[in-house]
Amino acid sequence: MIDTPEGTNNYINLAQRAYEQAKDVSPRTRAGWLEEVASTLETAADELVLLARQETHLDDGRLRFELRRSVFQLRLFIDEIIQGEHLDATIDHADPSWGMGPRPDIRRVAVPLGVVGVFGASNFPFAFSVMGGDSASALAAGCAVVHKIHEGHLQLGLRTGVLVQEALTRAGAPHGLFGTIVGREAAETLVDHPLVKAIGFTGSTAGGRALFDRASRRSTPIPFYGELGSINPVFVTERAWRARRGEILSGYASSFTMGMGQFCTKPGLLFVPTDDVDDVDGPIDLAEVLRRELEGKQVTQLLSPKLRAGFEESLQAVRSMPGVAVLVPGDNAEAPRPTVLGTTAEDVRQRPGILEQEMFGPATVVIRYRPDTDLAELAALLEGQLTATVQAEPDEDVSDLLAVLRERSGRLLWNAWPTGVTVTYAQQHGGPYPATTATTTSVGTAAIGRFLRPVAYDSFPEEQLPEPLRDDNPWRIRRRVDGIWESAGKEEEKE
Amino acid sequence: MIDTPEGTNNYINLAQRAYEQAKDVSPRTRAGWLEEVASTLETAADELVLLARQETHLDDGRLRFELRRSVFQLRLFIDEIIQGEHLDATIDHADPSWGMGPRPDIRRVAVPLGVVGVFGASNFPFAFSVMGGDSASALAAGCAVVHKIHEGHLQLGLRTGVLVQEALTRAGAPHGLFGTIVGREAAETLVDHPLVKAIGFTGSTAGGRALFDRASRRSTPIPFYGELGSINPVFVTERAWRARRGEILSGYASSFTMGMGQFCTKPGLLFVPTDDVDDVDGPIDLAEVLRRELEGKQVTQLLSPKLRAGFEESLQAVRSMPGVAVLVPGDNAEAPRPTVLGTTAEDVRQRPGILEQEMFGPATVVIRYRPDTDLAELAALLEGQLTATVQAEPDEDVSDLLAVLRERSGRLLWNAWPTGVTVTYAQQHGGPYPATTATTTSVGTAAIGRFLRPVAYDSFPEEQLPEPLRDDNPWRIRRRVDGIWESAGKEEEKE
Repeated sequence: MIDTPEGTNNYINLAQRAYEQAKDVSPRTRAGWLEEVASTLETAADELVLLARQETHLDDGRLRFELRRSVFQLRLFIDEIIQGEHLDATIDHADPSWGMGPRPDIRRVAVPLGVVGVFGASNFPFAFSVMGGDSASALAAGCAVVHKIHEGHLQLGLRTGVLVQEALTRAGAPHGLFGTIVGREAAETLVDHPLVKAIGFTGSTAGGRALFDRASRRSTPIPFYGELGSINPVFVTERAWRARRGEILSGYASSFTMGMGQFCTKPGLLFVPTDDVDDVDGPIDLAEVLRRELEGKQVTQLLSPKLRAGFEESLQAVRSMPGVAVLVPGDNAEAPRPTVLGTTAEDVRQRPGILEQEMFGPATVVIRYRPDTDLAELAALLEGQLTATVQAEPDEDVSDLLAVLRERSGRLLWNAWPTGVTVTYAQQHGGPYPATTATTTSVGTAAIGRFLRPVAYDSFPEEQLPEPLRDDNPWRIRRRVDGIWESAGKEEEKE
Repeated sequence: MIDTPEGTNNYINLAQRAYEQAKDVSPRTRAGWLEEVASTLETAADELVLLARQETHLDDGRLRFELRRSVFQLRLFIDEIIQGEHLDATIDHADPSWGMGPRPDIRRVAVPLGVVGVFGASNFPFAFSVMGGDSASALAAGCAVVHKIHEGHLQLGLRTGVLVQEALTRAGAPHGLFGTIVGREAAETLVDHPLVKAIGFTGSTAGGRALFDRASRRSTPIPFYGELGSINPVFVTERAWRARRGEILSGYASSFTMGMGQFCTKPGLLFVPTDDVDDVDGPIDLAEVLRRELEGKQVTQLLSPKLRAGFEESLQAVRSMPGVAVLVPGDNAEAPRPTVLGTTAEDVRQRPGILEQEMFGPATVVIRYRPDTDLAELAALLEGQLTATVQAEPDEDVSDLLAVLRERSGRLLWNAWPTGVTVTYAQQHGGPYPATTATTTSVGTAAIGRFLRPVAYDSFPEEQLPEPLRDDNPWRIRRRVDGIWESAGKEEEKE
C-alpha cells in the first residue's frame, strides 16, 4: 500500500511521458477527458459516498453535496479551457512605429508546467482530495498529476484514483496522466523529484511549511501552492450588535460548528462589544445564549483520531492562556460537543498569541471589546487569513476596519459567514501567509492559472506557431491583439 | 552614503505609510504621478546620460535609447492601469440556480501587495535600475518601492532617485512612496523586513539565489521575483546552415557582442553542423569567418572592475574545460576584444557543465554537431533559459526541438536574435530556473501582475464595495461579469 521512493519515481516518470503526449492537445480534447472523469464520479456516487462515510464520519448529505461540487467544478473548468481563458493568448504584430523603436512580431501563450504533485486534505474527501480543486485545475491546465492520498480516507482515495485513471484511459488520455501515491516517504520523493514542477497542498501550517521549505531548498526550486492555516475573524460593530445580536450569535454558532468545525474557513474569532453595549437593550448572558444556540446541533466524531488529538491539544493551549474563560464547555465524548471560549480585547492586546492558534474542530473564541474601541487597530494584530468578516449596518463607515482586513485576508465578507466557498469565476480562496504560501487561489476558475507559465514566440512564421497564437485562431479563443481584446465570438461572426 | 539597518527601516516605514495613503487612489490619479516621473526623466536626459556614461562606459546612443525605453515603459504601464487590465475585476452576481447550489454575490479585484523591495541591475542603468521595469511595475500596481541602488552606477542611482522623488511629490503622491537605499547590509534589512511584501531582483545566479533563500526562510515568506542567469542557446539546422551560414554568423557576432555581451539575453551557445555539412558548398573556416565578423566591432571597457573580474574567471573556467578550443582569441586589454570558444556536441554530452557556465561579457561558445544529430536530445541537456533561438528554413519541421526548448525557456525566437527585449503586451522575459525564480515576466505589461494579489468581496452591498467592483463601473474598466467579459467601451456606449 505504502509507495517506495522507487515506486514513486516510476509514477512520476510515467506522468512525465503522459504530460509530453498531452501538453499540446486542443482544449476540446482535454475537455473530453475531464468530462469522462466528471461523469464517472457522478455515476459512482453511491459507492464513493459509502466509502467516504466509513472513513470520515461525515454524513451522507454533506458527502453527496461535496461530490456534486467536485463534479460541477470539473465541468466549470471544462467550459473555461474551451473558451481558452487560461491561455491568456496575446498577439502583438510587428510594428515599425512602436514607441520605443520597431518591435518584432511577438505572441504569448500560457503553457502547462509539467508534472504537478498534489497533496489531498483530510477534511474534504472529495473537494480537496483525489479529484479536488488542485488536481482538477492542474489537469485543466494541461499538466500531469501525481496525487498523494490523505491517509484519513485511504480506501476512498485509492478507489477514486482507480476510477479517475479508468475514465481517462476510456476517454483516450495517455497512460499515466494521473497517478496516486501513499505514504510519507513517497510524499517527500514527490516534492524532491526534478521532474515535478509545482506542488498543490492543503493541510496544516506545520506540515505545509515543512514541505514549502523543502520545495524552496531544491537545487531547482518550484512553486509550492500551500493552503495552511486560518482563524477567520469576525468583527461585529456596536450598531450591528445592538440591532441583531441574536441573529448574529445564531449564525455564528451554525457556521463554526458546520462540519464539526473542520473547515479551513471556520470562524475562530468573534469580536463583539462588552456588556456596556448590551445594556442598551438590557444585558445578555452571552454564555447562556450561545449554549442554547449550540444545544440542538448534531455532533459526530471528528475526521480521524490524529485530527482529534490535534484539536484537543490546540483547544487546551488556548483554554489555558491567561485571561481566557470557558463560556460554553464542550465535552470529551467520542462525538464532542462544541466549546466556546471567551476573552477580552485587553487580554488579546497583551497576548496576541490567542489570535494565532487555530483550533481545527468545534471550538471558537469570543473576544469582547469596550465601546469606542478602534476595531482597525485590533484587527492589525491579526496574521494572514483566508477570510475576514464584518457584521455591520448597511450605512456604517467601517472603511478603516475593511482596509486593515483587506491587507490580511483573501476574502472579505459582509453580514455573511465564511464557511461555504462557492466555485465561481470571482472566487478567491487564499490569503497572506500563513493562510497560503502564494498570492493565488485554490478555488474557482482562477486556480487553473497556478499550473501554467507564459511563453513568448518572437518572429515566428504563421505556420510554425502553436494553434492558439495563429492569426486564424483555430481554437476560437478570446485573445488580446495589439493591445485590444477580441472575443472568440467576434471571429466567428466574421465567417 | 551607505544606509544602516536603522536608516533602511525608516525608509521602509515611510514607504508603508505612503502605501497606505496611496493604495486605493484611482488609476487616473496614479497615472498622473507616473506621468510626472516619465516627463521628469525625459527632461533630465542630458544630465542622466552624462552621469551614466561616467559610471558604466556605455555609449551615448545606447544610454539615450535605454532611457527612452524606460520612459516609454512607464507610459505603456500608465495606459494599462487606466484601462484597469491589472485589476482583473470579476463580478459574479448572486445566483440561486448556480450548478453547485445557490451562490452569493462575489466580486474579485487585484490589490497591491504593499512595500516592494527592488534591486537594481548593473548592466542596465536605466531599464533595470532605479526607475526600471521592476520599480515601474510595482508603482503601477499601487505598491510603494524601496530601491536598492546598484553600486556600479551609484551617482546616477542617487540622482535618479532624487528626481523620481521630486516628481512624485510635485504630482501629489504621498511622501515616501519611492525611496532608495545603498549597501549590502541595507539590502539584507530590506529582504528581511516584515513590512516588505515582495522583492524584484535582476542580477547574478549566486547573488539572486542567496536572496531568494533569504526571502523563503523568513517567518513570513515573500515572493522573490528574481531574474538570474541565462545562456540563451541558438540552434542552427543543417538546412539553414547550408542556405545562409554567412548571414547567421554575422547576426550571431553582432548579437553576442552587443553592449559588450553584457546582456542577460546574450546568445552564449551556438549549435551548428560540423564541416561535413559545410562541405556541400565547400568547407568554411569557422574561426576565420568569425574573426572577420568580429574585427570591425567597437569595444569598450566592461561595466565595472568587479564584473570584469567575474567575466575573466568564467571565461577561464570554460576555456580550460577538456574539449574546448579557442576559435577567436580575445584579449586582456582595458576594452577587451571578444572571444569565441569552440567544442563539439560529443564533448558537451560528456561534460554538460559547458552548457551551464554563463560568461557575462563578450564571449560565447560554438558547438558543432554531426549531421543527423537529434537536436531535441541535445537541447534536453540545457537548464532553464530566458530565451532559446532556432535558425531554420520556413518549411522545416523542428517541432521536436521547439517542444524541448519551450520546456526550458520563456521566449522562443525564430530566425531572429535574442538581444533586444521590446516592451509590449505579449512580452515574456523570464523562464524556468535558473533563468528566473518565478513563472512571471519582468518586462512588458504583464510584469505589473507580480505585485498584486486577488481579494474577493463576498455579499457586499453596492455602497460598501470598492470602485472597480461597483455595478456602475465608475473607473470604466474592462471586467468579467457573470463569466462574460465586458469592455469598458460598452458601458460608455450605454450612457
